[in-house]
Amino acid sequence: FPWVCSALMAFARHFPASAALLLLYPCLCMPHGGSYSLDTALDRLYRKNVVEGRGSLALDIGGTLTKALFVDSSPSQGVLHAAAAKLTKSVGESFGARKSAERRRKTYVGLSLQVPALNATLHFFSFETRYIEDCLDFVRNYAGDQRREKLVVRATGGGAFKFARRFQDDVGVLLDRRDEMACLVNGITFLMQNVPEEVFSVTSKMRSPIASPGEGLDFRKNYRKTDPSPFPYLLVNIGSGVSVLAVRGPGKTGFTRISGSSLGGSTFLGLACLLTGVTTFEEALELTRKGDVCKVDMLVGDLYSGDYGAMGLDADVIAASFGKVVMQRSPDEAAAAVAAALNPYSGEEGAVDATRTDESLRAADPLEMPFQREDVALSLLRMVSNNIGQIAYLNARTSDIRKVVFGGSFLRGNPYTMASISAAVHFWSRGRMEALFVDHEGFAGALGAFLCDTPYKLGMDGSIFERED
Amino acid sequence: FPWVCSALMAFARHFPASAALLLLYPCLCMPHGGSYSLDTALDRLYRKNVVEGRGSLALDIGGTLTKALFVDSSPSQGVLHAAAAKLTKSVGESFGARKSAERRRKTYVGLSLQVPALNATLHFFSFETRYIEDCLDFVRNYAGDQRREKLVVRATGGGAFKFARRFQDDVGVLLDRRDEMACLVNGITFLMQNVPEEVFSVTSKMRSPIASPGEGLDFRKNYRKTDPSPFPYLLVNIGSGVSVLAVRGPGKTGFTRISGSSLGGSTFLGLACLLTGVTTFEEALELTRKGDVCKVDMLVGDLYSGDYGAMGLDADVIAASFGKVVMQRSPDEAAAAVAAALNPYSGEEGAVDATRTDESLRAADPLEMPFQREDVALSLLRMVSNNIGQIAYLNARTSDIRKVVFGGSFLRGNPYTMASISAAVHFWSRGRMEALFVDHEGFAGALGAFLCDTPYKLGMDGSIFERED
Repeated sequence: FPWVCSALMAFARHFPASAALLLLYPCLCMPHGGSYSLDTALDRLYRKNVVEGRGSLALDIGGTLTKALFVDSSPSQGVLHAAAAKLTKSVGESFGARKSAERRRKTYVGLSLQVPALNATLHFFSFETRYIEDCLDFVRNYAGDQRREKLVVRATGGGAFKFARRFQDDVGVLLDRRDEMACLVNGITFLMQNVPEEVFSVTSKMRSPIASPGEGLDFRKNYRKTDPSPFPYLLVNIGSGVSVLAVRGPGKTGFTRISGSSLGGSTFLGLACLLTGVTTFEEALELTRKGDVCKVDMLVGDLYSGDYGAMGLDADVIAASFGKVVMQRSPDEAAAAVAAALNPYSGEEGAVDATRTDESLRAADPLEMPFQREDVALSLLRMVSNNIGQIAYLNARTSDIRKVVFGGSFLRGNPYTMASISAAVHFWSRGRMEALFVDHEGFAGALGAFLCDTPYKLGMDGSIFERED
Repeated sequence: FPWVCSALMAFARHFPASAALLLLYPCLCMPHGGSYSLDTALDRLYRKNVVEGRGSLALDIGGTLTKALFVDSSPSQGVLHAAAAKLTKSVGESFGARKSAERRRKTYVGLSLQVPALNATLHFFSFETRYIEDCLDFVRNYAGDQRREKLVVRATGGGAFKFARRFQDDVGVLLDRRDEMACLVNGITFLMQNVPEEVFSVTSKMRSPIASPGEGLDFRKNYRKTDPSPFPYLLVNIGSGVSVLAVRGPGKTGFTRISGSSLGGSTFLGLACLLTGVTTFEEALELTRKGDVCKVDMLVGDLYSGDYGAMGLDADVIAASFGKVVMQRSPDEAAAAVAAALNPYSGEEGAVDATRTDESLRAADPLEMPFQREDVALSLLRMVSNNIGQIAYLNARTSDIRKVVFGGSFLRGNPYTMASISAAVHFWSRGRMEALFVDHEGFAGALGAFLCDTPYKLGMDGSIFERED
């Protein structure tokens, strides 16, 4: 019996309570003798993390986005289970018909995932962290009023610390806080090991580090098989900022945060907001789809009137992001015209008004081109994507790891973003490395939080107490 | 005699014609017999590169700035020789009192340099490449009308190719074009080897990767001794874009361009122009001096309400450049107010008008702060500087070089820029690497072009012909 007991506890440690309960169900049904009632203890453990009949919840509260994972492990689980559907609906209702609330809460039905390894179906949601009360409403609704004791929800990200008190005071939910990086690694490793049609490399026509999406990207995903031992790999997570982790094995001691960058998703969105007047990530991405990167960036060809052959730099390589702004002549007039063109509040969208600049100067310099908000948005996206691809490549070199996996909400499944990163990795590594992506790129942290060791230990007397680590 | 002859030619190869002539002067005065008149040949070589009595000129025509080096090797050379002074004055005159022309041409009197190794005094000028005719006027004035045959001026940078025809047709000067990277390396190596009080590391209070200049930077330069063998070193040149060169020895085969970045000086200036309405680099730098980086960037402390101890990230580390823009609530109103505040053409400079935003929302989120053009300019400078410092560090790691020298016109001798780069290198290397800078950071390319092997060979019959390499 001691062996069974320790095996059970090992299971309980390695699987979330809800899944563990399902896995252990046959054991719990076995008649057994002993000094305490194991099923009662596990039942209490279960209640700590799961609302009966409504599955389990995990949160990843980042600087810009809050990602929520709803794990439906009920016998009647479906692609979008009734409980999840009800959650989604009720959140929508709590905001009425307000457009802004709709815009800041997303339900990713297409990403819902049946995971045999967990005997559960996962559903994904996101909220804008600046409107954290949207998420509080969601969790309040999830918790309902049927609970008998204080509900515990696993959470990670900086907001799990920052907003802990509001979750406790406003919603009556205790956040079981988990290390952000450990959760990310947990989540990505789990996806690589267990979910088919999840990890992919991309092919596109973008082999050079510049190209415009209008040219026909011809983007394709090439899915990889699941891999029981995906180590070592480099995890590059692009949220508000960027974290670079060297993952050499499973568990908390298997990885190190080796690098990062402050040029991440919020840099793209923040600058896009200021420069083009968009207010959401989706609007910013939408703009990029009509942009031309050659209008704003200074290319090698602009400097040399051709390739820089001696250094192997083709004419279409970006020499300086936003460099063409500086190549504009008559700076006062040009800047005024550009600012007017870019500022959506001036009532003048679109190209720079040619009549505003000195025609004789314009004629003297073929590089002076007007550009539009779309071009600016695209150059921003390229700047951030290329830079991350390069930093990823360099860190892969310094840590001697060749498998580079990109995650985080910056990607948003956007083909152009992934093609840019992939092209940058290909360019800098001279084709020796390949960028990998995952379909659930934004939710690795929440998934990892859900998959984390349970925070509770079962005492030999059946008591439950928190781990100290 | 053959030995003397080959030694002379070796000298002629390794020194520019003007300096070589001075060095060789005693030899040329010696009576000698032979099959051809060496002094006549060298005299012709000299005329190819130097205007008699007016020294020699070298150009580095980059995407944003054209750097000019005037080498005064006359017996009466001084700190600012009469010829250089006349050049400077005449260029000023050719534009009359126009403010814009003043602004786009600079004479760096403080950088004038007496170099015993060259027996010459160097004077430095710069022009904005978008107004290339300023530089053409300068060269026309330098060439004067006293030349007897076509004048040759050494030049490097993309513009040496792009504008070659205009120099030939408009000014009658042939550009002797040299590889940009080879010139950079030549110039920096020469400065490290020969010029005392030139190479320095910096100390400042900026040990963390964020800090505002207002806090008292306490910036100090620590000059290094000249080093006859400075190899290997990593050269990070920050012009419009960034080039990273591994320099392992002297000469053309001693270095490799191992990396680069499109986030360079023109990215800072281009974005600063669009976001703050400045039109020159100096204006942009001036803005940064009153900026606060905490107003625009998302810090670790903003995410965690404290340090992220598990990963060794202090609360004041920048998590996401421009991330606070995204943390602003009520995006439509906030973005409108911000755009109005940043856009100098809207007539509303300065802080965001608090009355425009919803006060109840503001109260709910302590992170919503108004910010000013100065804060935006500073965040841009930090973003570009930190990123370059990080890419430099990573490349130093991959190439196993510990000495990292930064050059290029982006630096402009600006303490905050150098302190940022230095802090980034210190942060990422955990204090194991140190950033080095040079006082003539913008002029290494022009200096290197001047120092390049002469392009002409002396035939045994006294004829002069161009090298083929």
